[in-house]
Amino acid sequence: MLHKITSLTVRDVRFPTSLEQHGSDAMHTDPDYSVAYVVLDTDCGLKGFGLTFTVGKGTEIVVCAVEAVAGLVVGKSLQEIVSDFRGFYRLLTSDGQMRWLGPEKGVIHLAIAAVLNAVWDLWARAEGKPLWKLLVDMVSHREFRLDCFFLLPEEHMLKEGYPAYTTSCAWLGYSDQLLKQLCTDALKSGWTKFKVKVGADLEDDKRRCRLMRQMIGPDNTLMIDANQRWDVAEAISWVSSLAEFKPLWVEEPTSPDDILGHAAISKALAPLGIGVATGEQCHNRVMFKQFLQASALQFVQIDSCRLGSVNENLAVLLMAHKFQVPVCPHAGGVGLCELVQHLILFDYICVSGSLGNRMCEYVDHLHEHFTSPVVIHDAHYMPPKDPGYSCEMLESSVQSHQYPEGDVWTLIMNK
Amino acid sequence: MLHKITSLTVRDVRFPTSLEQHGSDAMHTDPDYSVAYVVLDTDCGLKGFGLTFTVGKGTEIVVCAVEAVAGLVVGKSLQEIVSDFRGFYRLLTSDGQMRWLGPEKGVIHLAIAAVLNAVWDLWARAEGKPLWKLLVDMVSHREFRLDCFFLLPEEHMLKEGYPAYTTSCAWLGYSDQLLKQLCTDALKSGWTKFKVKVGADLEDDKRRCRLMRQMIGPDNTLMIDANQRWDVAEAISWVSSLAEFKPLWVEEPTSPDDILGHAAISKALAPLGIGVATGEQCHNRVMFKQFLQASALQFVQIDSCRLGSVNENLAVLLMAHKFQVPVCPHAGGVGLCELVQHLILFDYICVSGSLGNRMCEYVDHLHEHFTSPVVIHDAHYMPPKDPGYSCEMLESSVQSHQYPEGDVWTLIMNK
Repeated sequence: MLHKITSLTVRDVRFPTSLEQHGSDAMHTDPDYSVAYVVLDTDCGLKGFGLTFTVGKGTEIVVCAVEAVAGLVVGKSLQEIVSDFRGFYRLLTSDGQMRWLGPEKGVIHLAIAAVLNAVWDLWARAEGKPLWKLLVDMVSHREFRLDCFFLLPEEHMLKEGYPAYTTSCAWLGYSDQLLKQLCTDALKSGWTKFKVKVGADLEDDKRRCRLMRQMIGPDNTLMIDANQRWDVAEAISWVSSLAEFKPLWVEEPTSPDDILGHAAISKALAPLGIGVATGEQCHNRVMFKQFLQASALQFVQIDSCRLGSVNENLAVLLMAHKFQVPVCPHAGGVGLCELVQHLILFDYICVSGSLGNRMCEYVDHLHEHFTSPVVIHDAHYMPPKDPGYSCEMLESSVQSHQYPEGDVWTLIMNK
Repeated sequence: MLHKITSLTVRDVRFPTSLEQHGSDAMHTDPDYSVAYVVLDTDCGLKGFGLTFTVGKGTEIVVCAVEAVAGLVVGKSLQEIVSDFRGFYRLLTSDGQMRWLGPEKGVIHLAIAAVLNAVWDLWARAEGKPLWKLLVDMVSHREFRLDCFFLLPEEHMLKEGYPAYTTSCAWLGYSDQLLKQLCTDALKSGWTKFKVKVGADLEDDKRRCRLMRQMIGPDNTLMIDANQRWDVAEAISWVSSLAEFKPLWVEEPTSPDDILGHAAISKALAPLGIGVATGEQCHNRVMFKQFLQASALQFVQIDSCRLGSVNENLAVLLMAHKFQVPVCPHAGGVGLCELVQHLILFDYICVSGSLGNRMCEYVDHLHEHFTSPVVIHDAHYMPPKDPGYSCEMLESSVQSHQYPEGDVWTLIMNK
């Protein structure tokens, strides 16, 4: 029962979301939400499931990268990995030949995230705990921080759940009518925080933000998301024009690499009461460190697949806490909600202890393909109870959506 | 004769350089210098050759990425591309689905560099000019800058060449004896500027730097290169310990993403007269912009394959000029010298007009695999005369080094 990893398989799984403009924004007009899906087999029958999220074309490149690092994982035991997890992380990210392809960014880092997510899933399953609980217990046993901290927040989460906001109502490609309908439904289901995609056309944005604010009223929360559409000056002037709709934050106003640009935008928007949020394409902890050092963001949006899995995300949670900047994870896509809920539960229970200005993104689709889908109750993420990291997919879903040979795709291509 | 691109082929070509520790440094201990090698065919028989440099394992991932973007190139005419090159650049780098894999970084950006390098080669061949001359003529015809500037520097380059420094003498894996021998030879051949790899062991570095300084004397130039080995505080203390050997710069002292870290190192080392050089893993122009804005480097090391080909490198040359920071390109590897010489010639003739604190890296191996290898005369790059971007490889070299099926590799694997 040493949980020796005997094989790693990876598959290219795509969902034709572009057909109905789900997920459309100013930079990604036709996403087909996809994953590189990893399964680890062990000599004791236990499996580990992991994935990284992609947006369609090019998923085969990530699959190729996962295959390239597989040799560093297969043959190792879980014990061997977790007893020196830092060393294992470095083995994957600092291979003397492969690190040239990053380092720690882009395709190779997405691939490593998929593999490490599967390792963490395997570990949590071996311990018989959901991942968030594995982390909480690890930290509390080591008296890593104030132990008195843990019990109350954990009970609170189990009872109330972690607050969420919804992005499902206002994708850029949705009609006003659809937006209104979705908004009405969401309000009925208890949602109080809403995000609108902006950035393609200013007049259009004004109309949509006005409509949204009318629908949700003055007391609910509105956020806007430009998905990197603007340069720095453009971001400041465009968002200033939308200030009357009182957005809490503007997300991804410019290039995700432009730390100093985000700092300039933050400074300009602060008097308007609008913060800057970014992170879903922030490629590693070194970038987050600088965003925090430069006061370039007011909301940290960690991503469970862009960063190097739990390992790197924990580093970012601790840095955000040190700088007293709230973490509001990026989710949506395929499986991102399932994964990141574990990290934000840990953040609340063991790191921040606060819900002030904190919430986790939620998008209501593709959950039906998972064996332990997220449970949302009254606009809150309810802590997962099943062992693991919640990213095992239904084998039938994987098979029918495998690209290009799955039924779903052969049907589309033969049309 | 519209030069319509009819096909794109890409091959994985690797050289077993690790066998003799060529190219070894503190982070890349066993590099097999490699390329993803692209050939464009056109309907008029003209071909375009391009490549991106890699360090061995994982080259197949870049090949996979080149294949993923090939569809955006094949079928287009050269005229169509160059008449809106900015639009074409954006088409490649901002594809609504594939940009998630970067954007503009890592594997996908390396792949785009290989493709664009081939397009620029094709264009220069179509015009019957070496690439540097194509650029110079383009700018001077458009009266883009002071025209009087061009003639004298161009004549000067044709006569004297562009100053180079050598990295060939002191790879980390070389013995002291080999280092001394190579140094003696280099001095005889007219070399006056030398780079030493450091960062694995401080005492070892002291010994090697002392030896190097003894060999080259007090008036020649010494640079040190840590290949990202340190954190910020470690970099400052380690380099301070080597200050007595009077290095002009320390290269890649820490994570290539840590702009603010480089700024802190620059500030701490300035009183010692040591500058910070970086760029070979600076993944795009947005990062270079911030390095310049933050005074985080004193030498800009552009790379012909890390950035998005000539297009993005021109942007960085202009920014460096605006900030009055000298450009000293990264070269070596396979084909990097062949490529980047064109860019630095353009920089001198049309942008900087200065050789102050400027030089281009040179490494003396693998040139024999190119149809128009660099010509070095008295430690200077002599301007290439053949049409194109100088990165066409000998077909026999490509075939024998193709991985894993080429003769060179089947022989190694059967040993």
